[in-house]
Amino acid sequence: MAIQKPSIPKGTRDFSPAEMMRRTYIFDSIKEVFRTFGYAPLETPAMENLSSLMGKYGEEGDKLLFKVLNSGDFAAKVAPEELANFTALAAKICEKGLRYDLTVPFARYVVQHQNEISFPFKRYQVQPVWRADRPQKGRYREFYQCDVDVIGSRSLMNEVELIRIVERVFRKLGIRVVLKMNNRKILYGIAETIGYADKMIDITVAIDKLEKIGLDAVNAELIERGIDAESVARLRPILELEGDNMSKLSKLEEVIGESETGRKGIEEMRTIFGYAEALGVALDIELDLSLARGLNYYTGAIFEVKALDYAIGSICGGGRYDDLTGIFGLSGMSGVGISFGADRIYDVMCGLELFPADTMVTTKVLFVNLGEAEQLASMRAVDTLRAAGISAEVYPDSAKMKKQMEYANRRGIPYVVIIGSDELAEGAATLKDMQRGEQVKVAIVDLVQHIK
Amino acid sequence: MAIQKPSIPKGTRDFSPAEMMRRTYIFDSIKEVFRTFGYAPLETPAMENLSSLMGKYGEEGDKLLFKVLNSGDFAAKVAPEELANFTALAAKICEKGLRYDLTVPFARYVVQHQNEISFPFKRYQVQPVWRADRPQKGRYREFYQCDVDVIGSRSLMNEVELIRIVERVFRKLGIRVVLKMNNRKILYGIAETIGYADKMIDITVAIDKLEKIGLDAVNAELIERGIDAESVARLRPILELEGDNMSKLSKLEEVIGESETGRKGIEEMRTIFGYAEALGVALDIELDLSLARGLNYYTGAIFEVKALDYAIGSICGGGRYDDLTGIFGLSGMSGVGISFGADRIYDVMCGLELFPADTMVTTKVLFVNLGEAEQLASMRAVDTLRAAGISAEVYPDSAKMKKQMEYANRRGIPYVVIIGSDELAEGAATLKDMQRGEQVKVAIVDLVQHIK
Repeated sequence: MAIQKPSIPKGTRDFSPAEMMRRTYIFDSIKEVFRTFGYAPLETPAMENLSSLMGKYGEEGDKLLFKVLNSGDFAAKVAPEELANFTALAAKICEKGLRYDLTVPFARYVVQHQNEISFPFKRYQVQPVWRADRPQKGRYREFYQCDVDVIGSRSLMNEVELIRIVERVFRKLGIRVVLKMNNRKILYGIAETIGYADKMIDITVAIDKLEKIGLDAVNAELIERGIDAESVARLRPILELEGDNMSKLSKLEEVIGESETGRKGIEEMRTIFGYAEALGVALDIELDLSLARGLNYYTGAIFEVKALDYAIGSICGGGRYDDLTGIFGLSGMSGVGISFGADRIYDVMCGLELFPADTMVTTKVLFVNLGEAEQLASMRAVDTLRAAGISAEVYPDSAKMKKQMEYANRRGIPYVVIIGSDELAEGAATLKDMQRGEQVKVAIVDLVQHIK
Repeated sequence: MAIQKPSIPKGTRDFSPAEMMRRTYIFDSIKEVFRTFGYAPLETPAMENLSSLMGKYGEEGDKLLFKVLNSGDFAAKVAPEELANFTALAAKICEKGLRYDLTVPFARYVVQHQNEISFPFKRYQVQPVWRADRPQKGRYREFYQCDVDVIGSRSLMNEVELIRIVERVFRKLGIRVVLKMNNRKILYGIAETIGYADKMIDITVAIDKLEKIGLDAVNAELIERGIDAESVARLRPILELEGDNMSKLSKLEEVIGESETGRKGIEEMRTIFGYAEALGVALDIELDLSLARGLNYYTGAIFEVKALDYAIGSICGGGRYDDLTGIFGLSGMSGVGISFGADRIYDVMCGLELFPADTMVTTKVLFVNLGEAEQLASMRAVDTLRAAGISAEVYPDSAKMKKQMEYANRRGIPYVVIIGSDELAEGAATLKDMQRGEQVKVAIVDLVQHIK
């Protein structure tokens, strides 16, 4: 076998122990909040039938699906002339694809298992997804999503609970954030008011860029997308609304109050903001009328979370959808969900140095190995630490002391225990605090009390 | 868009909340033991370059790899005549494949990151793997492996530590097991002694079936594989050895003591068994000379764990390998590892009803919803439970009481809290224990103390 320089596919990553410790801290923190809010874990297969995935993410999305080759003689029924059309050919030789997000598999699961599920169904799902995007800084071909959704309930209390989840997660992680919210019904109301209900998507796509490109550029794009100048001018005061959320909603109502859908959106936001206030949610929530979110299945409140102290895109987002399961034949299932972006949260936490010190430690205590009898004593003593939940190991060889201490240093192990012949005779151990450089001799049975 | 009946690829599975709770219990138990033994977490990408995977699992394994189609116009350089040879064609249009196990990616990682790693490198890895095997009962195309390995140390203390990990994991899970061990050096010694050192693989493949097909059938197979009858007869006493491990080793030494490799294997097992005994390992360990394990990279001690009270294949296995990383160009890296089979462990625990009761509970407390003011009070009260780590939710709509109680029943929620107008007036809540059918009125601030 020829020896090759090992590498991994571009856009994918190995996660070293140090990275894993920190990633696990994020996942565990998020899952713990999901769990206490009564959401239940779900997992779906990495591979879905391509028929479940195709057409769900737009034309561009279809191209970004990773397709898995059929097993066996996959090319048996391919005619040579079919080679020319690679899209059709791919459909013929691949029946499976890697999941692109967790939302479509969730919708598929709900429809497939509708008779076993007690609705409202509250689930969370933390799994990797795959996209054949061009890899670049911060954009990967394999990355984790942390989704939490409730489906089968139209109650706005679900939106309020999601706000509290956002509050709880980021408080726990120590990230200061602003939660931006809007409502697709309000966006429709705006489009309807200026006489372009049919162009709601064009309008939202354009105003979604407000923060990035500024009002003038947005107006230019709106005109380019076929909105007349007068209507564009009518949009302006809406996009420039100021004040607190409730007063923004009042002013908005004056402008779009004729639109029934628009009024409904305003009413929904009043209810949501009202509950958040009544419950004392300690989170900066901002009604942002330029927030649109690209995904067209949203039909009500939409969410986006930004870190206040670190420049990066949104680190969490989601919204209400009324017919996600319709694509699989089950209609009338309204739901709402949000997704936490673990990779960006990781970047924010690294950037702001928010990880607790103990997320850097894999092994807490190393017993150095000084020979056979000492090794046996160490292997006995290490058990008492493990039983107390402390990660501890015995160096497997009686190598030179220097080598063993270097191992402890390189791995950032905070404590070293030395059981040499003296200690052996006394049933004692020398415990060395690697950071302070202090050491103390203690009875082996008392070791556990000296590890912080 | 045509509506399709949703399904998933054959051999794959969805894991419902109830299944996830139990699977997570297994994974968390195993990871916790790995962690306390000083093993650090690692994750590698789902997709590896096919060049890293091909040829590592034998010819049969190559066929079982799931291959991922190249993005874009993958067929541009395919000539029509190439359609006939689907193996060559697959190699041309696919550069990536899904990982088949965690061992090869681990070896690839170690070689690729050798300069960042402090050896001995102790890692665990819990991730799914994919195999295009024919699906059948208990065999899936996507399943999790839980691997723990230490690489870069020849010390037999690593084997001893793995034995303790096996002991700890199954004690924690409540599964009574026997740990069967053997040593590839002993198997080589046996082959050498009977004059067929070059046929060690044939011999081990045959005697590996001893338990399944019996001694006569094994002997027949040995003869079929070209071992002469006299040599087969010489094998017999070895396979029929009885007694405790140490006396088996002594008798074995009388037979194969001329083989240097064989003697070394016997010595290794004496050391391992000796330490296990000195450390008081409370595990039934049995030297089983018919144990061979299929994988040819093993070179020393090999392990296999069987459940005592449930008929199923091995639920854990592994061994010592001396040159796993050689395939990627780094030689001299001895290591040893074992892999826990989460799916089979799950089956054993279901079969023996070993899951703790709380692994069946996703939400512990449901607050019923009796109207607007009551709902607000419930949404306040639920927070105190969550802060105490208790999973709790408020029913999102003020639906009929019967419907809400049915929801609690169907989801197996053990406690229901009722805050109605009476309770509201008193700052109290009625707590109902769903299993006992008892209820008690308590102050909202005291709720948390009444949840067990």
